[in-house]
Amino acid sequence: MIPSPSVQDDIQALPHRIEKDLLGTLAVPAEAYYGVQTQRALENFKLTGVPLAHFPKLILGLAMVKKAAAAANAELGMLEQVKADAIAHACDRIINGEFHDQFVVDMIQGGAGTSTNMNANEVIANVALEYLGHAKGAYKHLHPNNDVNMSQSTNDAYPTAIRVGLQLSHAELVDSLALLKESFARKGEEFADVIKMGRTQLQDAVPMTLGQEFRAFSITLGEDIDRIANLYDLLREVNLGGTAIGTGINADPRYAPLAVAHLSSVCGHSMRLANDLIEATSDMGAFVLFSGMTKRLAVKLSKICNDLRLLSSGPRTGLNEINLPPQQPGSSIMPGKVNPVIPEAVNQVAYQIIGNDLAITMAAEAGQLQLNVMEPLIAYKIMESMRMLKRAMDMLRERCIDGITANREHCKALVDGSIGLITALNPYIGYDNSTRIAKEALISGRGVLELVREEGLLDEALLADILRPENMVNPRVLGNH
Amino acid sequence: MIPSPSVQDDIQALPHRIEKDLLGTLAVPAEAYYGVQTQRALENFKLTGVPLAHFPKLILGLAMVKKAAAAANAELGMLEQVKADAIAHACDRIINGEFHDQFVVDMIQGGAGTSTNMNANEVIANVALEYLGHAKGAYKHLHPNNDVNMSQSTNDAYPTAIRVGLQLSHAELVDSLALLKESFARKGEEFADVIKMGRTQLQDAVPMTLGQEFRAFSITLGEDIDRIANLYDLLREVNLGGTAIGTGINADPRYAPLAVAHLSSVCGHSMRLANDLIEATSDMGAFVLFSGMTKRLAVKLSKICNDLRLLSSGPRTGLNEINLPPQQPGSSIMPGKVNPVIPEAVNQVAYQIIGNDLAITMAAEAGQLQLNVMEPLIAYKIMESMRMLKRAMDMLRERCIDGITANREHCKALVDGSIGLITALNPYIGYDNSTRIAKEALISGRGVLELVREEGLLDEALLADILRPENMVNPRVLGNH
Amino acid sequence: MIPSPSVQDDIQALPHRIEKDLLGTLAVPAEAYYGVQTQRALENFKLTGVPLAHFPKLILGLAMVKKAAAAANAELGMLEQVKADAIAHACDRIINGEFHDQFVVDMIQGGAGTSTNMNANEVIANVALEYLGHAKGAYKHLHPNNDVNMSQSTNDAYPTAIRVGLQLSHAELVDSLALLKESFARKGEEFADVIKMGRTQLQDAVPMTLGQEFRAFSITLGEDIDRIANLYDLLREVNLGGTAIGTGINADPRYAPLAVAHLSSVCGHSMRLANDLIEATSDMGAFVLFSGMTKRLAVKLSKICNDLRLLSSGPRTGLNEINLPPQQPGSSIMPGKVNPVIPEAVNQVAYQIIGNDLAITMAAEAGQLQLNVMEPLIAYKIMESMRMLKRAMDMLRERCIDGITANREHCKALVDGSIGLITALNPYIGYDNSTRIAKEALISGRGVLELVREEGLLDEALLADILRPENMVNPRVLGNH
Amino acid sequence: MIPSPSVQDDIQALPHRIEKDLLGTLAVPAEAYYGVQTQRALENFKLTGVPLAHFPKLILGLAMVKKAAAAANAELGMLEQVKADAIAHACDRIINGEFHDQFVVDMIQGGAGTSTNMNANEVIANVALEYLGHAKGAYKHLHPNNDVNMSQSTNDAYPTAIRVGLQLSHAELVDSLALLKESFARKGEEFADVIKMGRTQLQDAVPMTLGQEFRAFSITLGEDIDRIANLYDLLREVNLGGTAIGTGINADPRYAPLAVAHLSSVCGHSMRLANDLIEATSDMGAFVLFSGMTKRLAVKLSKICNDLRLLSSGPRTGLNEINLPPQQPGSSIMPGKVNPVIPEAVNQVAYQIIGNDLAITMAAEAGQLQLNVMEPLIAYKIMESMRMLKRAMDMLRERCIDGITANREHCKALVDGSIGLITALNPYIGYDNSTRIAKEALISGRGVLELVREEGLLDEALLADILRPENMVNPRVLGNH
Repeated sequence: MIPSPSVQDDIQALPHRIEKDLLGTLAVPAEAYYGVQTQRALENFKLTGVPLAHFPKLILGLAMVKKAAAAANAELGMLEQVKADAIAHACDRIINGEFHDQFVVDMIQGGAGTSTNMNANEVIANVALEYLGHAKGAYKHLHPNNDVNMSQSTNDAYPTAIRVGLQLSHAELVDSLALLKESFARKGEEFADVIKMGRTQLQDAVPMTLGQEFRAFSITLGEDIDRIANLYDLLREVNLGGTAIGTGINADPRYAPLAVAHLSSVCGHSMRLANDLIEATSDMGAFVLFSGMTKRLAVKLSKICNDLRLLSSGPRTGLNEINLPPQQPGSSIMPGKVNPVIPEAVNQVAYQIIGNDLAITMAAEAGQLQLNVMEPLIAYKIMESMRMLKRAMDMLRERCIDGITANREHCKALVDGSIGLITALNPYIGYDNSTRIAKEALISGRGVLELVREEGLLDEALLADILRPENMVNPRVLGNH
Repeated sequence: MIPSPSVQDDIQALPHRIEKDLLGTLAVPAEAYYGVQTQRALENFKLTGVPLAHFPKLILGLAMVKKAAAAANAELGMLEQVKADAIAHACDRIINGEFHDQFVVDMIQGGAGTSTNMNANEVIANVALEYLGHAKGAYKHLHPNNDVNMSQSTNDAYPTAIRVGLQLSHAELVDSLALLKESFARKGEEFADVIKMGRTQLQDAVPMTLGQEFRAFSITLGEDIDRIANLYDLLREVNLGGTAIGTGINADPRYAPLAVAHLSSVCGHSMRLANDLIEATSDMGAFVLFSGMTKRLAVKLSKICNDLRLLSSGPRTGLNEINLPPQQPGSSIMPGKVNPVIPEAVNQVAYQIIGNDLAITMAAEAGQLQLNVMEPLIAYKIMESMRMLKRAMDMLRERCIDGITANREHCKALVDGSIGLITALNPYIGYDNSTRIAKEALISGRGVLELVREEGLLDEALLADILRPENMVNPRVLGNH
Repeated sequence: MIPSPSVQDDIQALPHRIEKDLLGTLAVPAEAYYGVQTQRALENFKLTGVPLAHFPKLILGLAMVKKAAAAANAELGMLEQVKADAIAHACDRIINGEFHDQFVVDMIQGGAGTSTNMNANEVIANVALEYLGHAKGAYKHLHPNNDVNMSQSTNDAYPTAIRVGLQLSHAELVDSLALLKESFARKGEEFADVIKMGRTQLQDAVPMTLGQEFRAFSITLGEDIDRIANLYDLLREVNLGGTAIGTGINADPRYAPLAVAHLSSVCGHSMRLANDLIEATSDMGAFVLFSGMTKRLAVKLSKICNDLRLLSSGPRTGLNEINLPPQQPGSSIMPGKVNPVIPEAVNQVAYQIIGNDLAITMAAEAGQLQLNVMEPLIAYKIMESMRMLKRAMDMLRERCIDGITANREHCKALVDGSIGLITALNPYIGYDNSTRIAKEALISGRGVLELVREEGLLDEALLADILRPENMVNPRVLGNH
Repeated sequence: MIPSPSVQDDIQALPHRIEKDLLGTLAVPAEAYYGVQTQRALENFKLTGVPLAHFPKLILGLAMVKKAAAAANAELGMLEQVKADAIAHACDRIINGEFHDQFVVDMIQGGAGTSTNMNANEVIANVALEYLGHAKGAYKHLHPNNDVNMSQSTNDAYPTAIRVGLQLSHAELVDSLALLKESFARKGEEFADVIKMGRTQLQDAVPMTLGQEFRAFSITLGEDIDRIANLYDLLREVNLGGTAIGTGINADPRYAPLAVAHLSSVCGHSMRLANDLIEATSDMGAFVLFSGMTKRLAVKLSKICNDLRLLSSGPRTGLNEINLPPQQPGSSIMPGKVNPVIPEAVNQVAYQIIGNDLAITMAAEAGQLQLNVMEPLIAYKIMESMRMLKRAMDMLRERCIDGITANREHCKALVDGSIGLITALNPYIGYDNSTRIAKEALISGRGVLELVREEGLLDEALLADILRPENMVNPRVLGNH
């Protein structure tokens, strides 16, 4: 799959057109909307097999930036209105989902995103050219660089497009998280009266309700809704207009604010020009922070899924406190086996997101001087993480949480048989008695209540009162019994 | 160094006392303020060689929690006032820096912090016992568990102490960051008129000032001041009173809010009881987020230090734009060599912090059901990261940034000799002329201005105007020349 | 994109067939070669958008294992020969590249690979059915579980298929590495007489040749050829025949060795049955080690590419010792700019591989008891890493290393102008003189040779001898001058 | 704790001596054996609080290298014999454990190890000076640089010392691993007849013995013994004699092989000169590989400890198949609770080792041109990882594995009550019957054997034969019953 001279031979054997750039001429397939620079990138970078088209929101971000820039340039009198209109037309079609298959460059690429930017410039130019009645490649009528990329550098247009793309993902992510939180909260209410043993360090601890356990899942996820929502602000700040290194060289001083205003209106979000465009051009801090947030959420989800797999272990030789809804047969060799496939998949998504966060961290650290050339990897991995996280949460909710049922009797039996019950009796029978009975229960295999009753340490009325679930699973005033 | 029976033989050969717990009796050195459970932990965990005493702020956090709990217990009439006073006395002495060498347990330990909690309980009990005129170990007068640990479980006291300890580190960290930001800002002003070449992808780009470059460092660090300050709120929320698993079993319902109020007054910060104590008991999200923030800052510092090392490379065969103040001889074999040792050390601190963040992430993910048993590692690594980060920033400011000087002439000469100057001329001589002259300059080794002048493409007045630093390093209106 | 009831509605609106499993019936598209269990997995797991078909070598591995199992089963008289032949026919077509688009399950999936295994079983069964003249889905004639999966569990067939797939990648990887090593070695010879300054800590050190520098790249890569070749042995060891947990329950004792023998002959590599199938079933150690090896190689490549970018920095304001062959225009706004896009892409591949290694590490650590359920993620990431590594090395060699040229005069001029030359004179003029002259040169901006000559410290003949490249870049006996 | 002018004030207020280097004079405490360059480093780097002395084997490595170099220099007639003897004397005392408290520099330091190297040079010089009857600091009689460091650069002496230090750790590590493997193997034999349920995906699978489970732990660890032993060879290869960048500038051509020969004899291991000293000087590949190996072992240990915690969960509401020996009381609030503290500590060690591996990876990737300046961090983290791993394995063996007991009856009862038993009956009663009975058992809560008997599907003799442990936990020929 490595590019070689034969790539060009293959293209030239079919209908094609010849395009030209700084390095010379190249054949491009006749039907392609992309052009020579995309073609070079296609031949240069055959790495992941994952093209830009794998991430439609990035493509939307690019089209929105280009549309906004064209509007600003036209308004400043730098771009003819007819060209601006044609560019806007092309961008709108892309925003509506057309031509995404023309975004063919590999997500991993050298050049700090130049190939991605040029892929967008070329596709927009050629769609606009056809709209204007010209042939693809007739760039004298409308040029990818001079017109579509006017007043822009990859170094400002590309990071801005990434932020717009992430904004589009952001709302989806928050929505999915909120739905999942609600799903856990509903189960918290449904299981409010299911008494069960709490466990610390996998050892029997003290009683609680299954509702408290699911409510805690809901609470811990809920904390991240606001936190992720707050990070949204980071995505509003862009460096559009900074051009090559943030000094704004060769751009009109009015361009930057104007382009950002147009961008806000195109993407429907309020964007904001960064205070220091030089800092903003090379800084990857927003992505590091955003990725760190996806990592925190992934860690929480993984911990929850580990718990779900533990609680549903069995059916006979595990904890067996809950049942996950079966989604697919678990084994060809073991009749009747059903596995917790949904939480297992969430765990794996979490590990990949944690791995992605590391790749992003290293890429961010590798920035040098006025630019971070590793930005394509950062864009790739953060978009992947956000999308996988959203999908994993939807899957978890729809195919697992909503269908969980409790094994009430088994939970209750475990509490009744547990030695941990002694902790609740501790304030009434004293630490010495408690410890002695706990040891005796462990050795003899008998129940602690049985032993307490045998010794007549507590009368039945008080015992019943102590063991009422609402008394065991909350703080209580130790009255004068 | 692995514990063995001989540990006890060694202790018994010297003055010692015998203490007792659930598992039996054990010899403890006579002069030790810690007791049997600390002794067991000491023999169990010989892993890092780094004892609790390595982190004084954690010890302060523990003492503050114990003092607050005693006050609450006394106020509720559960703890005799004379005992509460003795505990408060002991805690105060620890807060003032005494007895830290008695905190001997390894930072990595099993038991979810029980050994750390018991080390604190035992030292406080024995200091209090001496204050009351009793011998060390005379626990019938004041007991580590029954009195010092009253109404507490490791599972609420320990996480609370960690948060208090981190609060104490927090202010220091923010202060150091603010000072470093200011140091960069001052250099930004000092170098405001040093014109130099900007570089993207390590290739010559367009002119900027060295002041702009240092100002960008200042801005990027400044962004983290507010962000870290905001995270402070995470450290205020504690689960004190949740006891074993957050249900508050065996604790008086009035205890939790009262203990938290006392804690606020002891530590001088406004602490807050978590809304859901079950969630709060097992959730490590705050630490993951805080660690992620230290990682983001570490990445920024590492990127800045990479740049400082690049900019000061040379003196003859590197970029040589700035000079770092020499701190130590660089080589025994190469006369006169001085190395950028301070930024190099910061890079390494950054890598360790990134590694710590991973350890914290894995530990957080490993929580199970009602507790995260890996909390000792989390506490260890986050305290280490925060302290190293603070120290690294102080070192960088005092021993490097404040003493940086610029090689103005060399910077200027690089601009004058660069081909990148052509970008500034581009709007005046056109893209075709620019590209042609750039190529010619590259091949011939001549200067672009020389070639422009030779061809008479621009008159000298306009050329001088274009090349004025303030015109090259900012956006400008392209007037009618 | 999340599956929902409408998935089934959509399928039922088109030609389809109904299939059945433990959980009930489901519609499958009529033309699909996969069946009900694949369909369930397709609806369950919509996570990465990357299907099994993205990794053809994994598909080959699966087909080879199924072919070997069928042969063993037939030989033992457990599977009718006509069925075995039909299965072999289907497997051969898949091995030849047909039907890969039928491998549709997401690379991330719960169930420890059951869905992948069933996707293979179902496609093979339906291809075989058509070969036998039956309709797709007519499983009474040949069944995905009973026949294609006979004597197998996912837990032995799937890990074995992964190993076979990795073997196929292994040779390619070693070949690409060897070619890259050779490419560097050739440059090492080509540049053997290019004298240049060596740099430590980015500071001028002592002279060396550019050939020595490239030779070192070649050597460091060469060390990994043997090392990776040695790891090959890890991939030969399989647990085929261990069935569910490695005890071989329900498998004939003769099956395991027979199936492995057939597998060796099918895949053309000598496979070996693991000594302890229980250990082998849950152990991910081989993958951790293999991934660690890809990480080590990625780190080396990244370091080399960092150096290439440094050495080619400029052209005017960087080191500018070498020229990388231009591959694409570098900027629309900066005329004539060409960037080191190829090494930049390699760096990013390296970061992703390091991130993948972390995901694999976490997945490996998450194994529980008799199985590691995270194996699909492990397979996904290790196959991705190996393929990207191979492609990145090919790209680096073809599009960068082979075309590198040296700027001989500039390298020589940097040596002549450097202060580091003084180190070579040190044994002749003494440390005191050396240090004094080094300082004077630094302050005055003059050359050290100029100053040495001015002071008459060495006669010209000796100086010329000392400065001969071959004398400066190798150890030499300090004779009686 | 950050150094400031007051450091020097403090020293000058006490007995001190003044020493001098390239940067000027500095006060050093009178009693200190280290000198001016160590003093500078002490004031420069206050980062971790972990001094060189924390790692005695690194100090031994340094002393051994210095002793070998002195011997080689003397043999070549470059160093007077009386000086060489004094240096050897000093080195021997350090090798015997004296003066380690004089190795005061922080483990994290800039300068690529120069401070560590100079700390060694200075301590050795001053011990030697006293031996020769001179005062500390009288360097005209014996000089840290000119004599102790003769023919060396930090860039060859330091990496060589690290390798020697790691060799000393290596044998310990392999020994501890072998002992742990044996401990598991003994338990494998002890538990050979304990029949229990195997579990995949935490769901009941098929029977196995507890002995098979522990044997698998033993096997998986055993695989790493050879592997780690093989890596030993990597530590034998050193770059001693390469001096500054590996070209061997200013070193006699006979020095390198001679010094390595002396080193072999001093350290008792056969060391080997690297083939390409330029490559060897900057290459961190050996450390990356070694660290990767510690990571693989840590992952295995963590997985095993997770399993031990699962298998010992309970006592009443968990799996409760095994009992870990109690090491310390588990809770002050819950009477009788004992926790699996030893495996918990091993898990945390594993996470730290994985974090260390990442720090090492990043440091390795950050090497530039002829040196890796991040080597101090690499040395720090790899030595920490190796020592913690060794200690964790000893702790695990002594305080946990050797004392594990099995709950035989409970294990047996779980098998008898499990639905998974049906898998063993599958070949005799058919898949349809099996599935039907499995479902019925799950719904009714009854046992599968009970149901099979009720339906008379198998006669008792055959049933007894099938259920014989040795038949269930191994492959068997399905005969004509």
